[in-house]
Amino acid sequence: MTIEKPAPASADIGVTGMGVMGSNLARNFARNGNRVAIHNRTVAKTEAVMEKYGEEADFIPCESLDDFISALTPPRCAIIMVKAGAATDAVIEELASRMDEGDIIVDCGNSLFSDTRRREAALRERGLHFVGCGVSGGEEGALWGPSIMPGGSPDSYKRLGPMLESISAKVDGEPCCTHVGADGAGHFVKMVHNGIEYADMQVIGEAYDLLRRALGLSPAEIADIFAEWNRGELDSYLMEISVEVLRQVDKDTGKPLVDLIVDAAGQKGTGAWTTQTALSLGVPVTGIGEATFARGLSSSPKQREAARDFAGKAAQWNIEDRDAFIEDVRQALFASKIVAYSQGFNEIQAAAEEYDWDINLGDMARIWRGGCIIRARFLGEITRAFEKNPELPLLIGDTYFYDKIVAALPHWRRLVSLAALHGVAAPVFSSSLSYYDGIRAERLPAALIQGQRDFFGAHTYQRIDKEGTFHTLWAEEGRPEVEA
Amino acid sequence: MTIEKPAPASADIGVTGMGVMGSNLARNFARNGNRVAIHNRTVAKTEAVMEKYGEEADFIPCESLDDFISALTPPRCAIIMVKAGAATDAVIEELASRMDEGDIIVDCGNSLFSDTRRREAALRERGLHFVGCGVSGGEEGALWGPSIMPGGSPDSYKRLGPMLESISAKVDGEPCCTHVGADGAGHFVKMVHNGIEYADMQVIGEAYDLLRRALGLSPAEIADIFAEWNRGELDSYLMEISVEVLRQVDKDTGKPLVDLIVDAAGQKGTGAWTTQTALSLGVPVTGIGEATFARGLSSSPKQREAARDFAGKAAQWNIEDRDAFIEDVRQALFASKIVAYSQGFNEIQAAAEEYDWDINLGDMARIWRGGCIIRARFLGEITRAFEKNPELPLLIGDTYFYDKIVAALPHWRRLVSLAALHGVAAPVFSSSLSYYDGIRAERLPAALIQGQRDFFGAHTYQRIDKEGTFHTLWAEEGRPEVEA
Repeated sequence: MTIEKPAPASADIGVTGMGVMGSNLARNFARNGNRVAIHNRTVAKTEAVMEKYGEEADFIPCESLDDFISALTPPRCAIIMVKAGAATDAVIEELASRMDEGDIIVDCGNSLFSDTRRREAALRERGLHFVGCGVSGGEEGALWGPSIMPGGSPDSYKRLGPMLESISAKVDGEPCCTHVGADGAGHFVKMVHNGIEYADMQVIGEAYDLLRRALGLSPAEIADIFAEWNRGELDSYLMEISVEVLRQVDKDTGKPLVDLIVDAAGQKGTGAWTTQTALSLGVPVTGIGEATFARGLSSSPKQREAARDFAGKAAQWNIEDRDAFIEDVRQALFASKIVAYSQGFNEIQAAAEEYDWDINLGDMARIWRGGCIIRARFLGEITRAFEKNPELPLLIGDTYFYDKIVAALPHWRRLVSLAALHGVAAPVFSSSLSYYDGIRAERLPAALIQGQRDFFGAHTYQRIDKEGTFHTLWAEEGRPEVEA
Repeated sequence: MTIEKPAPASADIGVTGMGVMGSNLARNFARNGNRVAIHNRTVAKTEAVMEKYGEEADFIPCESLDDFISALTPPRCAIIMVKAGAATDAVIEELASRMDEGDIIVDCGNSLFSDTRRREAALRERGLHFVGCGVSGGEEGALWGPSIMPGGSPDSYKRLGPMLESISAKVDGEPCCTHVGADGAGHFVKMVHNGIEYADMQVIGEAYDLLRRALGLSPAEIADIFAEWNRGELDSYLMEISVEVLRQVDKDTGKPLVDLIVDAAGQKGTGAWTTQTALSLGVPVTGIGEATFARGLSSSPKQREAARDFAGKAAQWNIEDRDAFIEDVRQALFASKIVAYSQGFNEIQAAAEEYDWDINLGDMARIWRGGCIIRARFLGEITRAFEKNPELPLLIGDTYFYDKIVAALPHWRRLVSLAALHGVAAPVFSSSLSYYDGIRAERLPAALIQGQRDFFGAHTYQRIDKEGTFHTLWAEEGRPEVEA
């Protein structure tokens, strides 16, 4: 086919980058009444999209970037959907050099929020808007309704917001899209969303592993238990697809597919980003951290090989009350999941303070209710909690979640204890419990650590009974204390 | 005093930056027969050092950088001991612009290894050597014999090594200094050293906390137990100073000092760096990670305040056999410590592979035996383990450490279980046990995670029974599997 020159200012919005994510977003825009200019560096890809979807969607295909820019109605909105990193910087520059004041570039890729902040600042200097926009829901979500987390200026959202809301998932008639906050806030929140996803997947994995090893259940039997849980407060997309994965039978062997899959979890880096960023902010996100490390551990073939015959010296499982044990697992899963979300929201709060973002936390949970991977029934409760108290310092301190945790505690403690005694790794279950017991502790051994630090590094300490900063002269006779 | 112009080429080595660390290093060099040129941006500091130590040390004070450079015998060795970051870059440039081919700039500050790599590459282009050099031992160590971890080129070590070895700590007559590897290897190993230090301090803290809360012991009684442990395999500097900290009594109140210190642990970032870098390398360093997060948790006043009255619903301590419990704690501490070191060495191995560093792991443990904060008896065993097998994939797989872990297991499991049931946070004890049980697991729930990832993101999976990469068409009738 040949692509004709588009009529000037004929498109509401443009998408460059015709991979599956890009073309699905474009199709979603078109289906929802937006006229979409599409473009790709190699024109063959644009042609292929036209051939496949040109009937369904009223696209405006563009051969060159000049045509693409000319096709957009000012102030122009151009979405880029290319690989994060250098490719994104290159496309931004190509677009920006052709644009006019007030035009908007939207990066819908998985960029690191600090890159987004840098790009936004540079384009703002040139009179352009740059919107880092998190999109969750995978390829199907992009096509049928993702959860959308745009950052950037409030002004840019006025032009862009209605179009993004038109393509987003809807829950109870509300779009799963809102303006998150300035510059990199959208990509930041998307990053934490992904980190929470890591924790959410890992706790389901730990539940599966414990049910299997303690009770000797088959994947299909565990699928039935998960399906049951999915009708209650644990109702979530990840639980739902876990049921499907566990029920899947391999055609050739008749075995459960999960038993034939290599048990080395891959990762594309967003769990690590979330943990690394939390470490920089000083926020303990132990659930996300342990989940990310658990993937790394599973993908350490040399180390696993070396440890293959390590002794367990663990108790043999002998659970008498199977139903009680299953309930222990369910409660531990729910409590650990709540802790992971609570930690993730603390990370968003800390970043909002650090980068001066005005983020409505309740809205974040609201736009995650549909379209995205972590969509779940209990997100409604998170929204309610932050609506009640926008400054809530700890999600697990909200009455609803606190009551759930307290109800879970005896089960959760028993399960973590059993896992340790029986030699089954449950890193997020146990780390989340440690977090709970740590955050509520009246006194922590950190006081001893402060003493050690003052001893070897003269790092000083504070006292609970006096104002000031103190140092003990550890090397001197009598070890006198001085104000530092 | 007035500072005279120094005689040209009269100094063996120079130190710029006359803070306590810099002047102590200079005094150490002088005491060990090296003629040292000293310099500081504000000359008053140089004068103060001369006034205080000019008698003791045969320093060559320099008023200007030109004088400083002229005083150094070619090929020049100039140590910079200034704040990491921009200040370091500025001083490097000031020195480099005055230097000749083959001269050596040594950064003894706590720089991030990636900055060191960048600086080394830039100076190499200009014909200069740049040595990022880790120095551990605090102010006292700098003066009397630190552990020294220099990176950079082997050539630079020929000139620099003998002087560094002359001032380093000595154990069994061997210097605690060796050439670590190219470019940033020295700062990398110093970073991991600090990360291990975080874990080491935290496990001592957890032991203290459990002994106190389970047995109701006083700090002084726990000091006695630690002193006893310090005569055995747990013999270490950190244990030794913990005894001193716990024995310290506040003069004014007569109370144990540790009870008056605010229990919010500070940090200067190297624990976070170690964890962040491990996440980038995909290496699970859960002990260091949890220890770093534990400091962050302790320093989260708003969250701790919100959680102050959270219910524990935990068992009441009622330990009948106190000695057995104390032994449980000791064994858990030792096993967790071994795991933290094992993980730290895995991080060094991964970095050596990534950055093409030829690091002798046994030598790393050897140079940590004296001078530094983590000096400990068992480092000799680490050296022996890597001498026996330089490619050892897992330190806990070495016979000595494996036997220790296996002996610890029943105690360790019991203690982690008790901590969970009784509501005491023991994040590194429990996370290290999870790691041990994870790494030795025949099958991990990561297989389910791979299924989930393939379901929502078409991330594909591998099979244990066939070569290739597979994808299940989850949305299609019968969910067929295809090669991806």
